[in-house]
Amino acid sequence: MEADPRAARLSNVALAGPSQARDRRSIRRTNLGLVLRMLRDDGPRSRAQIAADTGLPKPTVTSLVAELVSLGLVREGPAQREGAVGRPGTLVHVDGRDICGIGVEISTSYIHVLALTLSGATAFEHRSAVAVADAEAAAVLDLTGRSIRACLAALERDGIRPVGITLAVPGVVDARTGTVEYAPALGWRDLGVVDGLSARLDQPTPPIAVGNDAKLVAIAEYVQAQGKGVQDMICITGERGIGAGIITDGRLLRGSTGFAGEVGHMPLDPERRRCVCGRLGCWETMVGLDAIFRLAADVGDPVHDPHVELEDRLAELHRRARSGDVRTRQALSRVADDLALGIALLADVLNPEVVVLGGYFSYIGDLMLQRVREVVRARVMAQEAGGCEVVLSTLGFRAAARGGAHLALDAVYQDPSAV
Amino acid sequence: MEADPRAARLSNVALAGPSQARDRRSIRRTNLGLVLRMLRDDGPRSRAQIAADTGLPKPTVTSLVAELVSLGLVREGPAQREGAVGRPGTLVHVDGRDICGIGVEISTSYIHVLALTLSGATAFEHRSAVAVADAEAAAVLDLTGRSIRACLAALERDGIRPVGITLAVPGVVDARTGTVEYAPALGWRDLGVVDGLSARLDQPTPPIAVGNDAKLVAIAEYVQAQGKGVQDMICITGERGIGAGIITDGRLLRGSTGFAGEVGHMPLDPERRRCVCGRLGCWETMVGLDAIFRLAADVGDPVHDPHVELEDRLAELHRRARSGDVRTRQALSRVADDLALGIALLADVLNPEVVVLGGYFSYIGDLMLQRVREVVRARVMAQEAGGCEVVLSTLGFRAAARGGAHLALDAVYQDPSAV
Repeated sequence: MEADPRAARLSNVALAGPSQARDRRSIRRTNLGLVLRMLRDDGPRSRAQIAADTGLPKPTVTSLVAELVSLGLVREGPAQREGAVGRPGTLVHVDGRDICGIGVEISTSYIHVLALTLSGATAFEHRSAVAVADAEAAAVLDLTGRSIRACLAALERDGIRPVGITLAVPGVVDARTGTVEYAPALGWRDLGVVDGLSARLDQPTPPIAVGNDAKLVAIAEYVQAQGKGVQDMICITGERGIGAGIITDGRLLRGSTGFAGEVGHMPLDPERRRCVCGRLGCWETMVGLDAIFRLAADVGDPVHDPHVELEDRLAELHRRARSGDVRTRQALSRVADDLALGIALLADVLNPEVVVLGGYFSYIGDLMLQRVREVVRARVMAQEAGGCEVVLSTLGFRAAARGGAHLALDAVYQDPSAV
Repeated sequence: MEADPRAARLSNVALAGPSQARDRRSIRRTNLGLVLRMLRDDGPRSRAQIAADTGLPKPTVTSLVAELVSLGLVREGPAQREGAVGRPGTLVHVDGRDICGIGVEISTSYIHVLALTLSGATAFEHRSAVAVADAEAAAVLDLTGRSIRACLAALERDGIRPVGITLAVPGVVDARTGTVEYAPALGWRDLGVVDGLSARLDQPTPPIAVGNDAKLVAIAEYVQAQGKGVQDMICITGERGIGAGIITDGRLLRGSTGFAGEVGHMPLDPERRRCVCGRLGCWETMVGLDAIFRLAADVGDPVHDPHVELEDRLAELHRRARSGDVRTRQALSRVADDLALGIALLADVLNPEVVVLGGYFSYIGDLMLQRVREVVRARVMAQEAGGCEVVLSTLGFRAAARGGAHLALDAVYQDPSAV
């Protein structure tokens, strides 16, 4: 009677193939990662326990742990438990205090650098307000390079090794070539950001990668939500543009060439206003930052001033709405309706369990959420919106850099020997 | 430098867990399926070869093959190759001529029953033109039951065993309860089709399941396209409503509760016309069958007559367009534009390698395809539409029943012992 589970299995059949031959080195890398991820996810344990849990022979575990110790990724220490009979047990712990990943978000209004250690602590964080769209790309890369250099210097001072840098950019990105193909909100097209940035940094620098900001936000939100067992999730990031990171069946949806999640230009506006991308009627003209500010205040109003920190401008909107200002409330209500229209569409197509609203929605979304949920519930085809919940991100504008840092660190968990 | 591949791996990490304990019986089922799928995908081979290819011990393979033979799923016979030295080799072949899956599509204008054997032959096929939306649900189920009984009788006469029946319905389906939650094109809501149909069939019948028609079309198209290595594919089925089956990363996208792929009600129409679902501006009001007929001909024109076979009405439109009829050509061009608008949206969100246009598009889409491709290319954010190709299905209105039959058969490949 279960049609769909069988369908899921059908696709497994379609994909089943002979397991690929792997060389010894690759098996060892895999096992190093396996042990390290187990220590991260399930906590400290003895070598004997690692052998039992992984099914690896004890001498192999001893050798793997020794390599992880020498790489500075784990340490061995006595168990905390007192009063045990016999030789005190020795536990293996993840020791990631001295290793970090760096995430760098280049948004339309700021550059945000965040270094996160393997143990999850923030080793460095800095944000500068920059009107990126009004600046030359070269100047933006200069500034970004300066921020990263400051970060690297601080890490070196603290004895922390960076393993990788991920740039987060609001646009269509070719990760293989390190190029931003098209980021209309920044006014960038075919910009080799990885090469451009490498040239601005002293060698050697850790490997630099570039990713779409909304996908990196989704990684940060997914890591956050993991404990709740969510497998299908859409993270919508509101900035000047609107992006989405989509998790389906526990995996980041990339699509065939890595461009999935470009939701900002869905043609939903019946008035078909022109978007910065040149197309007509794009969703982000209805629900992006420009829309909320345009609806809420006339030109000249301080909330339009790009030199004021974005959080402060949003806090001002929030204050006005809460004090009963009719125009602000109408603006929020209008954007809530239009936001819900797109969310409902995405819920019909993707049937997520959770839609997380991040970016600027983290700051004023509490005033829109009830309306958004009502409209989504009314508009989605499946009953009760197919079980879809709409929630606000708690990470706010920090999420993209955080996702970038997670991604850089993930390389360590996949291949600890690359440290 | 590879941000996105690392992201893909990150999600694997997130999902990694201890492998689940399995009992002996379950392992045996898994191995039976493994051997059967290998014979299907890689062709006939000797027991020794099966042992070598699967890594299973020879005595286990002997016992598995014996069970598959007794289940009537494989047979052993001499190798075709002549002149070999020594004892003539014996090869194991899939022998699926006597086992079939049944797919039954209930569409707005016909009921289509198709039985497909394990070896891929059509064992039974029948289609009746029915104006389903104008009939009572009970009468439609009566008719469907009658068609299935005729199919079962024919199969019995031919000595073919049906292993399962999958109903394909254009709507939101709850597969667990066998219920059609909402199928606006049929006018159905909360209809227990599996129970309703079971009650109309003589017992015992093979297990009955219900699935969304567009998802089943996607399965049929994916099986068709598999040889080409496509992993990311959207199948858009044009009927009175518009549905989609989405394959991402080689797997059917189900979403958290199985409702993914409801693309017909994306609010894309700037004129916000009312849809049969009650919402305003749904995509299917722009590109569904009603739209093309409304745009192409006045009321009273024979192409509107629901009693004429749909293929014949579409053939008439095709003939008019090819003979230069301006109104028909304008209608096709308008629908092509609006179709492309939605395809571009889906390509932005999902970044597929291929979009397959099925259903009525199979019949007149050749006259729209060039325009659709142009608009998609112009509208999708990623360069060259992110590599997305738009093609026509070759399965036409047969695809949903075919996908249903594949799905029913898949149960055999997953668990041959259940035959």
